Amino acid sequence: MTLPTFRDVQYAAALLQGIANHTPIHTSRQLNTISQASVFLKCENFQHVGAFKFRGAYNAVAHLKSEKPVVALSSGNHAQGIALACQLLGKEAHLVMPEPINPVKRAAVQGYGGIVHTPAISQEAESFSQDLVQAKQGEWFEAFNDPYVIAGQGTAALELLAQVEDLDVILGPIGGGGLLSGTCLAAHGVNPKVKVYACEPAGALDAMYSVKENRIVPQDHPHTIAEGLRTSVGTLTLPILREHLAGFFVVEEHEIVQAMRFIYERTKLIIEPASAVAVAPLLRQEPELQGKRVGVILSGGNVDLSHFFSGVLGHVH
Amino acid sequence: MTLPTFRDVQYAAALLQGIANHTPIHTSRQLNTISQASVFLKCENFQHVGAFKFRGAYNAVAHLKSEKPVVALSSGNHAQGIALACQLLGKEAHLVMPEPINPVKRAAVQGYGGIVHTPAISQEAESFSQDLVQAKQGEWFEAFNDPYVIAGQGTAALELLAQVEDLDVILGPIGGGGLLSGTCLAAHGVNPKVKVYACEPAGALDAMYSVKENRIVPQDHPHTIAEGLRTSVGTLTLPILREHLAGFFVVEEHEIVQAMRFIYERTKLIIEPASAVAVAPLLRQEPELQGKRVGVILSGGNVDLSHFFSGVLGHVH
Repeated sequence: MTLPTFRDVQYAAALLQGIANHTPIHTSRQLNTISQASVFLKCENFQHVGAFKFRGAYNAVAHLKSEKPVVALSSGNHAQGIALACQLLGKEAHLVMPEPINPVKRAAVQGYGGIVHTPAISQEAESFSQDLVQAKQGEWFEAFNDPYVIAGQGTAALELLAQVEDLDVILGPIGGGGLLSGTCLAAHGVNPKVKVYACEPAGALDAMYSVKENRIVPQDHPHTIAEGLRTSVGTLTLPILREHLAGFFVVEEHEIVQAMRFIYERTKLIIEPASAVAVAPLLRQEPELQGKRVGVILSGGNVDLSHFFSGVLGHVH
Repeated sequence: MTLPTFRDVQYAAALLQGIANHTPIHTSRQLNTISQASVFLKCENFQHVGAFKFRGAYNAVAHLKSEKPVVALSSGNHAQGIALACQLLGKEAHLVMPEPINPVKRAAVQGYGGIVHTPAISQEAESFSQDLVQAKQGEWFEAFNDPYVIAGQGTAALELLAQVEDLDVILGPIGGGGLLSGTCLAAHGVNPKVKVYACEPAGALDAMYSVKENRIVPQDHPHTIAEGLRTSVGTLTLPILREHLAGFFVVEEHEIVQAMRFIYERTKLIIEPASAVAVAPLLRQEPELQGKRVGVILSGGNVDLSHFFSGVLGHVH
């Protein structure tokens, strides 16, 4: 596969016009004061399926040439993105969701018409998925290491750069690198001077080492509440990240929770822990960010709120 | 005091131009599907101080003729609204906040430069407040039974009606009636055919009886998580409500929690329980709302999230 380019991001943006939500920018005077920066929050939590993943999923599903059913492996936002993309494009979607499945996510996938398959505990999810591809005569769908997925994810940053003039920096969370590599392509296509930083949990620090060592360092026993960031980078995302990234910010678990709470209480936005990873460097006043105009991609808002509502319900009864 | 009119709402809107946030409208396909209506959420959770109360507080403080310090009694959003309004208008603000005080709200009031006073448990908050007015040679400030407060609160609906064409219905939560009476003035000034419904918790059902019986029925041992709705209507709000309201929707506690959870999970908006009271009639498919274009004033997003974050923190450590 060839690497995607800025032009692919532009094509994806044209395709997604009127289909993906053109998500708003939110600002917070308190965040600006604390960070000593001008911060612009790109609210992909308001994207369809509650996360940026819809962008790449739709762009990639739209480019599948066959009429075959789509088969993909994901227990998270990616599964919802594919299910909705397939529903909108009239394709059958089979989602392999390994246990433990969040029941809210399962219901969401089914709500978009996706067919959920759950491997038995004893089964290996990858081989189960490949068996399913055979059984359904389906087409296998990559989560992030796909040029159309990367280009689609880049459209969030393309919008951000059109919505906010003269950005100096863009921050985003990094897992497999689909969002960040698309963001790099978009940012440097618009303005080569924009610095893109990847924000990574200390408990899942494979991407930083992968970029440093120029090899895919496997994700080894990740320990972070930012569940979307527990994946390793891919063969397409790694070279793009190496070429474009200005650097990494490493974020501790307590900083993720602190940043989530700050965003919830001060901006009234529900974000998932992965998004908070990209806010944390601002709260600790990273020197590279002070005095700068900083765009932050709030990747999504799919978070398990059962703790909160069991608390509220406990209060009611 | 004379009753405020539509013109007062228009004046308030002119005054608040560029000072209050022009809050966005959010929509949700899932909410439309479930309610069988077209629903437009007016996001006052994104207002300064996290609630519509800033509008009325600013409008009223701006019309105070003396230079005296402002004294007000409130442990909630109203206190924050007055503190910020006074800060912006260069006035000293004394807020009487009876125990138990939410520490987040106390910090917010202090962050806006407000001076917090806490009566001893043995003291009656009203008389403590009047003593403070004497001691500070201050000016007493009404929470909602004030024509400028009512007119200011009405600007949220005025914006909503400009943002969404051909609304049939507006829903809002009712406590003291400041928001709802201002909403009535705005709605019927723009279009007398718009039906305004008040949404009230079953556990604090004084406003409905007050309107029916044409007297201020005192709030008797209210039992609801919608803490902002535990107040009684006033001498100014009652006649406006009687003249304009199309009716009441009574909402049970479990419906409030269900509606909060729906909004959090599906729209990624943090709202307070009072706002959920105005969403609940849609989720239970009230016949008067089906097939209609319905505006909902999401009154605010100031909610105690400590249950949620103690859960998340428990997960981290």
